[in-house]
Amino acid sequence: MAVTIKDVAKKANVSISTVSRVINDSKPVSDEIKHRVLKVIEETGYTPNPVARSLVMKKSQLIGVVVPSISNFFIGEVLNGIEEIGKMYNYDILLCNTYGELNQELRYLNLLKSKQVEGIIFMTWELKEEHKEFFNKEDIPIVMINRDTSEFNITSVSIDHQKAAYEMTKYLIDKGHKKIALIRGRIENYVFGIDQYKGYAKAMEENNLEIDQRLIKNCEFKLELAYEAVQEMIEDDILPTAIFATADSMAFGAINSLIDSGYKVPEDVSVVGFHDIKLASIYRPKLTTIRQPLYDIGAVSIRAIVKKIKGEEIEENIFVLPHELIERDSCKSIK
Amino acid sequence: MAVTIKDVAKKANVSISTVSRVINDSKPVSDEIKHRVLKVIEETGYTPNPVARSLVMKKSQLIGVVVPSISNFFIGEVLNGIEEIGKMYNYDILLCNTYGELNQELRYLNLLKSKQVEGIIFMTWELKEEHKEFFNKEDIPIVMINRDTSEFNITSVSIDHQKAAYEMTKYLIDKGHKKIALIRGRIENYVFGIDQYKGYAKAMEENNLEIDQRLIKNCEFKLELAYEAVQEMIEDDILPTAIFATADSMAFGAINSLIDSGYKVPEDVSVVGFHDIKLASIYRPKLTTIRQPLYDIGAVSIRAIVKKIKGEEIEENIFVLPHELIERDSCKSIK
Repeated sequence: MAVTIKDVAKKANVSISTVSRVINDSKPVSDEIKHRVLKVIEETGYTPNPVARSLVMKKSQLIGVVVPSISNFFIGEVLNGIEEIGKMYNYDILLCNTYGELNQELRYLNLLKSKQVEGIIFMTWELKEEHKEFFNKEDIPIVMINRDTSEFNITSVSIDHQKAAYEMTKYLIDKGHKKIALIRGRIENYVFGIDQYKGYAKAMEENNLEIDQRLIKNCEFKLELAYEAVQEMIEDDILPTAIFATADSMAFGAINSLIDSGYKVPEDVSVVGFHDIKLASIYRPKLTTIRQPLYDIGAVSIRAIVKKIKGEEIEENIFVLPHELIERDSCKSIK
Repeated sequence: MAVTIKDVAKKANVSISTVSRVINDSKPVSDEIKHRVLKVIEETGYTPNPVARSLVMKKSQLIGVVVPSISNFFIGEVLNGIEEIGKMYNYDILLCNTYGELNQELRYLNLLKSKQVEGIIFMTWELKEEHKEFFNKEDIPIVMINRDTSEFNITSVSIDHQKAAYEMTKYLIDKGHKKIALIRGRIENYVFGIDQYKGYAKAMEENNLEIDQRLIKNCEFKLELAYEAVQEMIEDDILPTAIFATADSMAFGAINSLIDSGYKVPEDVSVVGFHDIKLASIYRPKLTTIRQPLYDIGAVSIRAIVKKIKGEEIEENIFVLPHELIERDSCKSIK
């Protein structure tokens, strides 16, 4: 009769799953045990049944990535990091594009699970209760990007958005700007709406500058909405000397709006962005912006997923990567 | 030898999917055809293989999309069309990003098949023998975008690239330009390298204009390479009056190269593009370009896949969608 994995386990005095680990090299096993198991395998002539083996291993070498918009510049660059590092670890990526719709997000999360991906990287514009429910229910490794996950047990990777927004606002103030518009994402959104606003407000308050609520615009990361928001400022005759857009794409909308109305950037109005997408240095004037390490955000995310899959310790659950203020040509000193 | 579903289809003179529909009662089939298929099944004694049958029935409502670069502007807009129309038909999309690497492409094609997608939309920079082999072997519905598939039996969706390149070159000539550089994709690439060159050459020859091979640059759709190509022209002192880039992204590289060297666009040099990605109207100067109906290309592709999945007739195997020359601000008449 053929030797089974059970026989090997019994003879080596370890559990079946330990034998499976040694065979598949899937999880760390002490050298001593590994040696003992391998010896028994040799002695008994055990060969793993390939079908059973694939069932035990069930390693699809697949990671699912769920994003709200594939054509978003920011996300595209994060994906490069995910995919290149994923390939290093021999993982393929299945991508799902949700348009930020909750139902679609939940569908894809469940779909990926049923397609046996080994882990999921999840990005959304807005983290909702339904997402948290899914995460609490599932035991699949999950990493979120750019979300505050401190209140539930999900690994996340991001920069310190509040600090970055503070630094950029302070930078504008140091250049002599007193009227500074803030074009931000969704107001309900913790990271991009609320945290960034807090950083902006802190810098304004520390410098005794008034926050004009008419200059705070919620533009959902959309170039077109930022364009319109600046048109409104022009019509209302409240154009500030500086505009801080919390996404480069919105900064381009603001700049185009100004140029199309006969203003020069940065001569008449300074405009700064956030993200440092490729376009920021392609566009003329080159955009002063906050560099998020987009590639690294992707790389660290997939690295964390792979570690979780392999059952390795990860050093921290909330990764905060460094950001950097990149000075280019879209901001002028008016002191 | 066992009778297969193929034999039944052949004998009843219908498609395999029609036979499958009759067996599984999955979709409406005319009484006449149903009767004919059932009769053949009776005559041949065909019994559907239960495993095969469960595979046939197991409708994943999934379509795989394999692309060479998720962060390519062109592809991003095509994907919007694929996804929105896909959703209308209740199909979810699994996206795979290959970086144009053949091995990765073949891996993903096979992976998608094993994940039981019902059809595949495939884009690649270069169509190779290995792809054709895969297509010939598989009976899964496949649609290719922007490829000449006339020599093998795969549905494709694109515009007439040769004609479009001809029209753009003719447009520049009509504006008085005689020295016209062509910045194109890969030279080995049928559609983007060869067909577009043919259109350019035809317009030049018809107007008795010399083609200066030093002004034909292969830049692989990369902004950076187009930037360098124009720097070379400046260094070699052969800067033409007009540059035709066969991708908007390369046009932006050319414009930035000119601006950074002190030239004005279009005052000193006219630059035109190809694709009409969103950025073409975001950038200043706004780019004169060939509009490919990107969203429609995606929409028609997925529509064709869905029809194939349902076993419906598609009107044609090679879809050629209309293009349009969009005049904006990056080209000047020098007559």
